[in-house]
Amino acid sequence: MASRIHSPTPLLKDELDIVIPTIRRLDFLEVWRPFFQPYHLIIIQDGDPSKIINVPEGFDYELYNRNDINRILGPKASCISYMDGACRCFGFMISKKKYIYTIDDDCFVAKDPSGKDINAVEQHIKNLLCPSTPFFFNTLYDPFAPGTDFVRGYPFSLRHGVPTAVSHGLWLNIPDYDAPTQLVKPMERNTRYVDAVLTIPKGSLFPMCGMNLAFDRELIGPALYFGLMGDGQPIGRYDDMWAGWCVKVICDHLGLGVKTGLPYIWHSKASNPFVNLKKEYKGIFWQEEIIPFFQSVTFPRHLTSVQECYIELSKQVKEKLAEIDPYFLNLADAMVTWIEAWDEFNPA
Amino acid sequence: MASRIHSPTPLLKDELDIVIPTIRRLDFLEVWRPFFQPYHLIIIQDGDPSKIINVPEGFDYELYNRNDINRILGPKASCISYMDGACRCFGFMISKKKYIYTIDDDCFVAKDPSGKDINAVEQHIKNLLCPSTPFFFNTLYDPFAPGTDFVRGYPFSLRHGVPTAVSHGLWLNIPDYDAPTQLVKPMERNTRYVDAVLTIPKGSLFPMCGMNLAFDRELIGPALYFGLMGDGQPIGRYDDMWAGWCVKVICDHLGLGVKTGLPYIWHSKASNPFVNLKKEYKGIFWQEEIIPFFQSVTFPRHLTSVQECYIELSKQVKEKLAEIDPYFLNLADAMVTWIEAWDEFNPA
Repeated sequence: MASRIHSPTPLLKDELDIVIPTIRRLDFLEVWRPFFQPYHLIIIQDGDPSKIINVPEGFDYELYNRNDINRILGPKASCISYMDGACRCFGFMISKKKYIYTIDDDCFVAKDPSGKDINAVEQHIKNLLCPSTPFFFNTLYDPFAPGTDFVRGYPFSLRHGVPTAVSHGLWLNIPDYDAPTQLVKPMERNTRYVDAVLTIPKGSLFPMCGMNLAFDRELIGPALYFGLMGDGQPIGRYDDMWAGWCVKVICDHLGLGVKTGLPYIWHSKASNPFVNLKKEYKGIFWQEEIIPFFQSVTFPRHLTSVQECYIELSKQVKEKLAEIDPYFLNLADAMVTWIEAWDEFNPA
Repeated sequence: MASRIHSPTPLLKDELDIVIPTIRRLDFLEVWRPFFQPYHLIIIQDGDPSKIINVPEGFDYELYNRNDINRILGPKASCISYMDGACRCFGFMISKKKYIYTIDDDCFVAKDPSGKDINAVEQHIKNLLCPSTPFFFNTLYDPFAPGTDFVRGYPFSLRHGVPTAVSHGLWLNIPDYDAPTQLVKPMERNTRYVDAVLTIPKGSLFPMCGMNLAFDRELIGPALYFGLMGDGQPIGRYDDMWAGWCVKVICDHLGLGVKTGLPYIWHSKASNPFVNLKKEYKGIFWQEEIIPFFQSVTFPRHLTSVQECYIELSKQVKEKLAEIDPYFLNLADAMVTWIEAWDEFNPA
């Protein structure tokens, strides 16, 4: 492995929060107990606040429902989505830790090809603590993994890499498909364990899924806003996509890395494709214009903080995407509100 | 799998040549017999032309030594390297087939994790016949592989992909390291079988290794020039790297795809790191300037053929890289000679 691997992987138990959005009993935590119990959980209860969410005993957690969010954020609570997994970003904002791992409550522990349970948190920590290499592609994938390195022809000046801001994990069993693909291929299951972590090159966008995702709050936290989705909004299931587009263009500008690949979780249950189609269908049109927009986003050089970039991005959204739908005016305003709230909770 | 997979994989036996540069007995062909025998081999004998190269019985082949190359190309033979694997590109030029697979003679059949022999040609054909997706990253890797597809958030308008020009395969056992890494980690072996094929995104360069490489001659052939290396030249072991940089910028301009990943071959023998260091050391310096040059190469829009782009590239090499070393003036001239020779052998 190339230099700077941290081995054995530190637990970072005082530096990482696990954020879980949910509307139901958190029985799924039982299978995660050996891996999650060392960490503090931030549970964001979506939907009816009067419902009681059961958390298995022995976990250290705080739980916020909609009433809490409204009380804590006041008028700024308008930027936090309701009835959509996007609400999880409230947890990102109020965490005091350096790292976040967020996972959906229908995701279970996957097994590697040897049959061993995969400690998803540990692999995300490895990914975040090792540099990324966005400026040149390494054909043997992560050069910092054990038993590998940079290959012949990889420029030495680029081998130190850049800090890793985001670690995007994958899913065995139910793949993260859009509603049309779910409808067309309802029985498709992902059984392919690809033993790789790789840096998404600079200048390339990717579809960031929030199901199994970790990031460095200090490096990129303010860009992890999951937008206006769900109740009262014309769109759902694009919360993580929105965040991913914003995160990637800002990481590219600031010289930060985004990795994808390991770890896998076991995604147990496909959401209803008919419900999903209703939530998604505007996004399916809109993304055809949104993605070219993000592909052409540039930031003035003097913007050196995530917040500055994000505010600049909100202006460009207002200017360039409002012609698609007035929704983007609201979204651009919410982006500003989000940053204001972030800065209140996270003073410099 | 997404649409347009060709199943079962066609053999393409009248459409693919296998090009092998060598200086020794071709005993390695025995292990490849079940997979290579359907194809025509083009063997480029490097080094002393009076030496007899033994080819195992039953293979359909033509063999060219240095005398043949000089006789066939006349003064243009100056563009073909001597005493370096770069000589293989002579075979690319004189082939009459649509596809080329090139492999080194110290590469053997690898096994997949189930213990089955990997048919490298078959996987390369699959890679070349399925589209590439250079404009947006698919997190489940090749969307055209069995059991997978484009994930949620992948724009539908980009799902048709682009034609694949190059398929870059990998190596188990001895990884393709540069001399310094070989010296530092002489015992490192690649045992990680990564079950993935992926498109290298537009705008990203990669270190293309010629050990296990396939391409579509009709789409990109003239860009597969392996430069001036070896005897009489100040540099070696950068032949495939040079070709890879040129190929990638031209593919990006023309809207063609480059894939890397499967298939693996078993690379049996590390070359001598001391000899390699002597060949490589100028390249290690030079690549620090060459790569930024290629990262900034652009072509005028009206250039729509590989040849036009390649000639334009030779001009930019002359203009921008000659300040590194006068070698690049010779290389730029050789690039032009190569295209002239290519066009003689491959009339429109």
